[in-house]
Amino acid sequence: MENIKRLESEVRSYSRSFPVLFQKAKDAFLYDVNGNRYIDFFAGAGTLNYGHNNEYMKKKIIEYIENDGIIHGLDMATVAKDNLLVKLEENIFKPRKLDYKVQFTGATGTNAVEAALKLARMVKKRSNVISFTNGYHGLTMGSMSVTANAYYRDEAFINRSDVSFIPYDGYLGKSINTAGYLRRVLEDNSSGVDIPSAIILETIQAEGGIRVASNKWLREVEKICRDFDILLIVDDIQVGNGRTGTFFSFEQSGITPDIVTISKSFSGFGLPMAVVFFRRELDIWKPGQHTGTFRGNNLAFVSAAVALDYWKDDRFSKDIFRKGNYLRERLEKIRDKYPQLKAEVRGRGFMYGMAVSPAPIAREISMECFNNKLVMELAGAKNHVLKILAPLIIPDEVLAEGLDILDTSIGKVLQKH
Amino acid sequence: MENIKRLESEVRSYSRSFPVLFQKAKDAFLYDVNGNRYIDFFAGAGTLNYGHNNEYMKKKIIEYIENDGIIHGLDMATVAKDNLLVKLEENIFKPRKLDYKVQFTGATGTNAVEAALKLARMVKKRSNVISFTNGYHGLTMGSMSVTANAYYRDEAFINRSDVSFIPYDGYLGKSINTAGYLRRVLEDNSSGVDIPSAIILETIQAEGGIRVASNKWLREVEKICRDFDILLIVDDIQVGNGRTGTFFSFEQSGITPDIVTISKSFSGFGLPMAVVFFRRELDIWKPGQHTGTFRGNNLAFVSAAVALDYWKDDRFSKDIFRKGNYLRERLEKIRDKYPQLKAEVRGRGFMYGMAVSPAPIAREISMECFNNKLVMELAGAKNHVLKILAPLIIPDEVLAEGLDILDTSIGKVLQKH
Amino acid sequence: MENIKRLESEVRSYSRSFPVLFQKAKDAFLYDVNGNRYIDFFAGAGTLNYGHNNEYMKKKIIEYIENDGIIHGLDMATVAKDNLLVKLEENIFKPRKLDYKVQFTGATGTNAVEAALKLARMVKKRSNVISFTNGYHGLTMGSMSVTANAYYRDEAFINRSDVSFIPYDGYLGKSINTAGYLRRVLEDNSSGVDIPSAIILETIQAEGGIRVASNKWLREVEKICRDFDILLIVDDIQVGNGRTGTFFSFEQSGITPDIVTISKSFSGFGLPMAVVFFRRELDIWKPGQHTGTFRGNNLAFVSAAVALDYWKDDRFSKDIFRKGNYLRERLEKIRDKYPQLKAEVRGRGFMYGMAVSPAPIAREISMECFNNKLVMELAGAKNHVLKILAPLIIPDEVLAEGLDILDTSIGKVLQKH
Amino acid sequence: MENIKRLESEVRSYSRSFPVLFQKAKDAFLYDVNGNRYIDFFAGAGTLNYGHNNEYMKKKIIEYIENDGIIHGLDMATVAKDNLLVKLEENIFKPRKLDYKVQFTGATGTNAVEAALKLARMVKKRSNVISFTNGYHGLTMGSMSVTANAYYRDEAFINRSDVSFIPYDGYLGKSINTAGYLRRVLEDNSSGVDIPSAIILETIQAEGGIRVASNKWLREVEKICRDFDILLIVDDIQVGNGRTGTFFSFEQSGITPDIVTISKSFSGFGLPMAVVFFRRELDIWKPGQHTGTFRGNNLAFVSAAVALDYWKDDRFSKDIFRKGNYLRERLEKIRDKYPQLKAEVRGRGFMYGMAVSPAPIAREISMECFNNKLVMELAGAKNHVLKILAPLIIPDEVLAEGLDILDTSIGKVLQKH
Repeated sequence: MENIKRLESEVRSYSRSFPVLFQKAKDAFLYDVNGNRYIDFFAGAGTLNYGHNNEYMKKKIIEYIENDGIIHGLDMATVAKDNLLVKLEENIFKPRKLDYKVQFTGATGTNAVEAALKLARMVKKRSNVISFTNGYHGLTMGSMSVTANAYYRDEAFINRSDVSFIPYDGYLGKSINTAGYLRRVLEDNSSGVDIPSAIILETIQAEGGIRVASNKWLREVEKICRDFDILLIVDDIQVGNGRTGTFFSFEQSGITPDIVTISKSFSGFGLPMAVVFFRRELDIWKPGQHTGTFRGNNLAFVSAAVALDYWKDDRFSKDIFRKGNYLRERLEKIRDKYPQLKAEVRGRGFMYGMAVSPAPIAREISMECFNNKLVMELAGAKNHVLKILAPLIIPDEVLAEGLDILDTSIGKVLQKH
Repeated sequence: MENIKRLESEVRSYSRSFPVLFQKAKDAFLYDVNGNRYIDFFAGAGTLNYGHNNEYMKKKIIEYIENDGIIHGLDMATVAKDNLLVKLEENIFKPRKLDYKVQFTGATGTNAVEAALKLARMVKKRSNVISFTNGYHGLTMGSMSVTANAYYRDEAFINRSDVSFIPYDGYLGKSINTAGYLRRVLEDNSSGVDIPSAIILETIQAEGGIRVASNKWLREVEKICRDFDILLIVDDIQVGNGRTGTFFSFEQSGITPDIVTISKSFSGFGLPMAVVFFRRELDIWKPGQHTGTFRGNNLAFVSAAVALDYWKDDRFSKDIFRKGNYLRERLEKIRDKYPQLKAEVRGRGFMYGMAVSPAPIAREISMECFNNKLVMELAGAKNHVLKILAPLIIPDEVLAEGLDILDTSIGKVLQKH
Repeated sequence: MENIKRLESEVRSYSRSFPVLFQKAKDAFLYDVNGNRYIDFFAGAGTLNYGHNNEYMKKKIIEYIENDGIIHGLDMATVAKDNLLVKLEENIFKPRKLDYKVQFTGATGTNAVEAALKLARMVKKRSNVISFTNGYHGLTMGSMSVTANAYYRDEAFINRSDVSFIPYDGYLGKSINTAGYLRRVLEDNSSGVDIPSAIILETIQAEGGIRVASNKWLREVEKICRDFDILLIVDDIQVGNGRTGTFFSFEQSGITPDIVTISKSFSGFGLPMAVVFFRRELDIWKPGQHTGTFRGNNLAFVSAAVALDYWKDDRFSKDIFRKGNYLRERLEKIRDKYPQLKAEVRGRGFMYGMAVSPAPIAREISMECFNNKLVMELAGAKNHVLKILAPLIIPDEVLAEGLDILDTSIGKVLQKH
Repeated sequence: MENIKRLESEVRSYSRSFPVLFQKAKDAFLYDVNGNRYIDFFAGAGTLNYGHNNEYMKKKIIEYIENDGIIHGLDMATVAKDNLLVKLEENIFKPRKLDYKVQFTGATGTNAVEAALKLARMVKKRSNVISFTNGYHGLTMGSMSVTANAYYRDEAFINRSDVSFIPYDGYLGKSINTAGYLRRVLEDNSSGVDIPSAIILETIQAEGGIRVASNKWLREVEKICRDFDILLIVDDIQVGNGRTGTFFSFEQSGITPDIVTISKSFSGFGLPMAVVFFRRELDIWKPGQHTGTFRGNNLAFVSAAVALDYWKDDRFSKDIFRKGNYLRERLEKIRDKYPQLKAEVRGRGFMYGMAVSPAPIAREISMECFNNKLVMELAGAKNHVLKILAPLIIPDEVLAEGLDILDTSIGKVLQKH
């Protein structure tokens, strides 16, 4: 690790939580340079839903490179892009009756968010945007302005411009409906919250601590958007791509966003890629008005097309829900086994968190897990939520093994206290 | 192209200039789905300096994937990253006596610019930044604020915040030294241009129309930075990585930036990747303060390490200059051959532009070139500059062939008029 | 009125509500050019607490002009300013144990608010400021940014920068303590509401519809300021100067603001003047750092010094409370007499409002009052609150007469419906 | 002065330059509390063009107060306002063929500037505004954003938003036409200077150091406004009201601004008042959209109407020019007498400055003048310009006496060196 300490900026983060040199990875396993095997409950923060080096994609990718396929194409038309678009239409848009167009943005999620916000402001010609407490949308300046966490912002002389933060579902306790609050401030011309171009939200706040919005709340927010002529942007970067059991995270709620941002697991193979989907009639972009050198990562198009094959029918979805139920049950058992933790199990689909207290114990548990060869990260503003974000394709026995390690590790940590 | 027209946003741009479906590419050639071969004078807008599917990198990349190397690693320590850092130190930093640290940002150039601006503001605790006329630094909100072209900004309700634009070298004609103007407004407390945290510049404004800053001007700007305690950020995203003959574009001028942004050809293979280099003592980042899911594109680390082998000694550099001289001579001959074009040859290293007039004729020429199987793009606010941005590894005969096509195409277009 | 219609901008407002040419005024009466007498329940929106052409002040002012006293003095030291400062110290600061310094700003309330916000940001070096729903602080850009009502802002391309709006006391209904909400978002690093330099509030939101903050809520907000190292700014421009029975509106709550803005009735005679008071240790201003041509309206200093004589002892205060009680009783009787109005009586001291519904009926009532020679304005974002803002020195019988007119006018309007 | 030192904020400025307690003033004389008489070459920074306690106005004002005229009227229609509007139309607008409407804003110049900028942005629906180096327009946040001097801004966490600063006439030396530069950056879509709603300028930059724009330059800027559909705002707050010999400062150049801001000497008597004039068709204000408690200072209306009588014919104007010529000649003689000062005489009409060097000597001279009972201030970012801003009505012999003192004081100061 000396080279990394000497040469990489102090901004580095995960190489501190997991201080080994990783070399290889396959499906739900990571391997370090000494050959140690780790179960991966982190999955690249939701980027590796289909596992590391997914065999189907790997084959296609090697074949593509061997045949000298276009690797970098800006936004030129390529066979790889054409294939991806067609598969997107067939496997995703049509079955869900979505008449979306696709914008390929620079290959990171925050690029997609920036494009989405820009488009919304262009369409509605209002500068304000509404975001939510604990929302996380990225760290370039536009995305950061709708990101709640001050840690990223406070020292950087970044303005809080043209954004109003509203309490997310549950933020004010169970008895207060924050969608009602949202409607109230929009109805009230004198609330200080001006009618925005868009409301941007995550259906589950992953970085924010696995906070799940109820379907009822999501539908109320959608209704508010319709009533006040506001665009609804769902940022599905972390919780889309099957993480919640369906391809999009919002499907179970019945809402239809005007704009959707997608990235992370979209390429399937861990390759950088980001897209924005939006209703056809919102497509007022002028040619080249929003560009980016890496908006055409064709290698990612190849793997993304393979990933979309998982969604040809509902078998993959059913399997995710099945595993998710198992995961929830196990976590609830752990919660009940260790009442000292005052644990709260949160999540849906195949994304779960366990909030523990006091907050610092979460880090101890995650470190103990790592010592026992389980990679698992924390979430929430206080880093007090154990986040289970295993690949969707994790075999049942590996999932069980990982949860055993978590269980044992919690036991060990609690014993020390 | 029907699928692309139906499904991709109207923002698409190059698929309009080059309306074919590309399938394969090798070194300096692109191939469309019908097997047509095109000479590439565009090189992914400077992303493919080492050519398409560079054989050395291709081999390493396939091997890496076959061995299930880590593909996506956030900012975890990996063998691939370790190798890259060591090679960067050995082949780039040490020979140039640069004591830089490396920040891996999200995998697009604009992410690097955003990080650079954030760091500069954190270090100097001043919100203002100075940028230049015709500067181009990307389209996320922070980068866009220092990008001069209103095309990207005017409809999007984007504020012009905390940036002052200053005339670039030559902007006010040859007789006016704009560095003197810059010094003047900084000395004058009442100029409206507040002392900034940083001055951000490109040594050659590529998107801006291949505008070359003189070494003298660059040194004056660097001196101003020192005199007023301002950080100098060189955005070397498009013109770094050997494009000017040396690895960094600023080497010949003798300046040493405090912060450098690098992307595009850095990965060598066209894979998305971006980094920021900065003086060791500026590294005040807190862990995880600037993050991004794709800040660890390990596949790109592998190819980038191969790319850095080109810089072990000065042979590659010498060859670029040799070819560059040939290119300049040919362009000057074309200029002299067609005096009606009032052409102006601009550039240095292996990046040249030819400004022609009237402006719309540039598009006609580029279209005629494409009909003759040469891919070449335009630059400048009025799109009146033919931009020659061939891969650095282009064989002499292919370069000559491409220039022949350019010559003939100009002839044809002028005949029509 | 033809000249005014032809020559004055369409922005004019009160000349529409009260479409006569006023000529004279004395104490609680206004007279139009035809000699009609009107009872004034408006008092220059709180600027004429001591009545029109207050006899004590009038005498002193005429004497001052006759003696060629300094009229305009920028911020030069003058006898008139010296007198005022001493009287302020004796009659106001010392008895209330306030160790304030005085900043004379440009002669309008919004100038004082701008100076207060600037000072707070300079002292705390944080850009964010917290304001409240329905808050009104003026219409220059800094003050407008903390003013909630979108009517003033939406068309003007004004950014919502560096301000977070929080629900005022009672905004979310009686069961929700919005001070608790405020504390919550400040404790939560990820709420989107960054720790501000200052919290700015009115103890009664006059323009906002006579919304009264409870003493308990004010004390909680003050405690939050202390706990998070935030400056508390009380904007006492409309409700200070005795309007609530005490000189400052916040005295009964027991809080001590760090910064207070005062204007409107401070000069006593209706002459433009504004000041900021702040704790001595906050006085980090550099000489001339905040200036303004009319920060030395010496004629206003003369009348202001007379006004402060009203506060030598507590007799004036007691009389205000006595009249206020009478006013409240009468309004409650009116409320009970006309249940169709669903009236709600709000206010304290000598500032009361009666919210009626449906909203448009308020305008009808105010017009009927005007027909009956009572001048009375509306407040609230929907203009549905009848605002009684009579001079504090109004004789009992005139107050009664005005309230009789109000009573009768309501009756007439309701009859029509 | 103890009271003032103890109780007034450190922001106080002129009470430091002129550390005496002033008591009375008449015409061109100030008197301190000890009966010392001072010649006033400062005139309230241009607020007392008609002298202190102008006898005509004084009479009318006392009469008005004695008759209980409306003192404070918000924007209600009053006889005093009606009189003023009619006189404005007759004596100012009609003879100059100006079809302006009048907006009464809060009673300080910066209120007028804020309203002007807001209106311009509303009309043109563009957020950017262009201002000039050394421009001074006031210190509320909107006005401050177009004020060049960083002294007022740097510590206050004030954004540089939506304003582009351009070099004023002469800023880059005599050989460079900065209007050409302005046109260049507006024609160039990629200059970083977006087409603004308005260009705001002073025809003479008073605070900026008595910098005079040439008529040619002003006409070029006006032409640019017409060519690019930009509103031209002339801020005539300091140099209007006859200071340049004509009522408006721009009359001699032949330009017609779209919007004019007026304050300072407009009330004539030193009473706070500010107005905006604009072309009738720009009047898109909604009722009450821009308000302010002191937008109806009726006492100021009374004196302003008297002041406008000075402009019934051209006698006053001729007299100003006559005196101005005398003033210029005397200053040029002083300049020639003391070559060590390297003095530069600047100005026109009856506003002159003498830039001296080294800069600190200006303060010494102004202090020596004050010792000799002449009040005179400095201007320019370095306070190196002696500013002569005597009342326009100053008798010839008093003007001569003041200039004698200036001459002698310079001699004394130079002797010391």
